[in-house]
Amino acid sequence: MNAARNKVNEQILSKKSLLCVGLDSDPDKIPEIFHSMQKPVLEFNRAVVRATREHAVAYKLNMAFYESRGIEGLLDMQSTLENLPSESLSIADAKRADIGNTSRKYAEAFFDHWGFDALTVAPYMGEDSLEPFFDYDQKLIFVLCLTSNPGSADFEEQQLQSGTSLYQAVLSKVQRWERNGNAGIVVGATKSSQLREIRKAAPGLFFLIPGVGAQGGSLQESAAFGVDENSQAALINVSRGIIYPEGSFDSIESFEDAVSVKAARLHNEMQSIF
Amino acid sequence: MNAARNKVNEQILSKKSLLCVGLDSDPDKIPEIFHSMQKPVLEFNRAVVRATREHAVAYKLNMAFYESRGIEGLLDMQSTLENLPSESLSIADAKRADIGNTSRKYAEAFFDHWGFDALTVAPYMGEDSLEPFFDYDQKLIFVLCLTSNPGSADFEEQQLQSGTSLYQAVLSKVQRWERNGNAGIVVGATKSSQLREIRKAAPGLFFLIPGVGAQGGSLQESAAFGVDENSQAALINVSRGIIYPEGSFDSIESFEDAVSVKAARLHNEMQSIF
Repeated sequence: MNAARNKVNEQILSKKSLLCVGLDSDPDKIPEIFHSMQKPVLEFNRAVVRATREHAVAYKLNMAFYESRGIEGLLDMQSTLENLPSESLSIADAKRADIGNTSRKYAEAFFDHWGFDALTVAPYMGEDSLEPFFDYDQKLIFVLCLTSNPGSADFEEQQLQSGTSLYQAVLSKVQRWERNGNAGIVVGATKSSQLREIRKAAPGLFFLIPGVGAQGGSLQESAAFGVDENSQAALINVSRGIIYPEGSFDSIESFEDAVSVKAARLHNEMQSIF
Repeated sequence: MNAARNKVNEQILSKKSLLCVGLDSDPDKIPEIFHSMQKPVLEFNRAVVRATREHAVAYKLNMAFYESRGIEGLLDMQSTLENLPSESLSIADAKRADIGNTSRKYAEAFFDHWGFDALTVAPYMGEDSLEPFFDYDQKLIFVLCLTSNPGSADFEEQQLQSGTSLYQAVLSKVQRWERNGNAGIVVGATKSSQLREIRKAAPGLFFLIPGVGAQGGSLQESAAFGVDENSQAALINVSRGIIYPEGSFDSIESFEDAVSVKAARLHNEMQSIF
């Protein structure tokens, strides 16, 4: 088994948690109290990490939220990554893929340059567009399979003449393309009925399950249907549902307390499956 | 018609050229002569732009080649973009898309923050993942349709039960989702037989056609089959086939001459369709 899976499995078993915290950090949404600081987004992220470290096994940085602010945002991304607990899995949610020589450059960016443990990628362009990512056999590569959004009906859920749907075809090819257990897939928590069927078709595959919280997916069903028989191969991501607690905060500590309560509640609900 | 299309159409008609130069600038491949400079990639890009400006109507920056070098690479990307001729279309080849609120951030990154005229996006996640891009009705959005790489057989060319292939389904939906003529598609030059059929199904859609040169696509066929009846709605991208001329160069001028010869030859071949 590879280094990234080993690392996250150890955390999953010791914490009895599948919680991945999504750092979709938006300057327009972070509490007022951070705005007077020199690097509001970085300080916000550090506070979220401090408040969730006990409960989370992974952190997912949504690249769009950093890229939208250009160099300044990417510097915040880099510092956030450097400040993550070393025992947690770091995921770049970037949904990249291109022709082979270009995908190789994206793999270099996220794995060699920034140093993430894991990356989300998009399957549309097929095998040679994903191969450069799978070449990294100590990392985890999460391929989009069945996503949480309404648009999943447009293509992902379309039936192919071969008798399976497109997302099932992706699932089956990803299982062939992986090396050394480095493949994972993204399956939305809003798709709980298909989640059970996908888990059955791919017993050992690592699942990244976003869509709990703001998008309306069920945590209970994600946990019940998404984990494999050893309860080791799934992460349930919550972004807005943790990092933006209701209310206004007059201190960093009170913000961290509110975030911590959110994370602890989710952690608690997950423990029932262990 | 929107601002980006107006701008590039004007160039296409005045230069009688469909040439888009792809700045896939790799520090390992740029001539020795640039390496002693303070910003080798930026100076290389500036030389390529000077050498091709007369022939090209668009420049495509392949984001992976800049992201792979982190902040330093992105600063080169930013300066390159600022140095492009204002009359040329600037395309970010980024192949982004995610759930709606995330795609909105990517759109902000490329259109509002960096200020590109056009962007490539990936269709797998469906309508709501692309809507935030199409909301920019003065920009051009190129959706992946049928790509030039072998992996296009894995999913893009799969037949759906509805009787069309996946890429045809993408083509048909993109035509419904566009606003104000801001939609384009990416079709590989290596797919000349399908290119003719796609053009027939989408007479006014803007085509970005990569794959001529290193990937083996035919310029003649791309030009003949890819343009619409007004010869205004296609760009043929060449990256490695222009920016890496054979030989070694003892001056920037001799490098620019070699690049210019390559671009002029391609430009010349294109003029026959006007």
